[in-house]
Amino acid sequence: MSNKKATVHIRLKDGVLDPQGITIQRAILNMGYDIVDSVRSGRFFELELSGDNGKVGTKVDEICRRLLANPVIEDFSVEYE
Amino acid sequence: MSNKKATVHIRLKDGVLDPQGITIQRAILNMGYDIVDSVRSGRFFELELSGDNGKVGTKVDEICRRLLANPVIEDFSVEYE
Repeated sequence: MSNKKATVHIRLKDGVLDPQGITIQRAILNMGYDIVDSVRSGRFFELELSGDNGKVGTKVDEICRRLLANPVIEDFSVEYE
Repeated sequence: MSNKKATVHIRLKDGVLDPQGITIQRAILNMGYDIVDSVRSGRFFELELSGDNGKVGTKVDEICRRLLANPVIEDFSVEYE
């Protein structure tokens, strides 16, 4: 489990209003592009991991819930490389 | 090319300072987790596309360069579903 990379994607839950996405969608329309029906925004973090025990996955999950995401309105997913 | 989804990932170029990532890495350390060596932050946008011509890819590329990303300090990549 050492020298891995975890990529955490955080996005708003379905049904939660995304003002940034709406604003960007309008801006795209105002720029003259008619190909984008909707925009949802999110953020991601690339974590370089080190650790010699098997609990890295559990710890990353805790870090996501406690620090990176707001579990009330956001979902997160983690991919390991 | 109709009813597609494009996911745009935007990240700082290599070598560009990422204060948000540094702050998060320190916060993780202060919370007692010693498994994260570094954090890089980024953002992504999910675009629902409609369009009946073959220029959707070119237009999405333009939208990224003109609106979503800052090409001076950021790289972007687009995946289509």
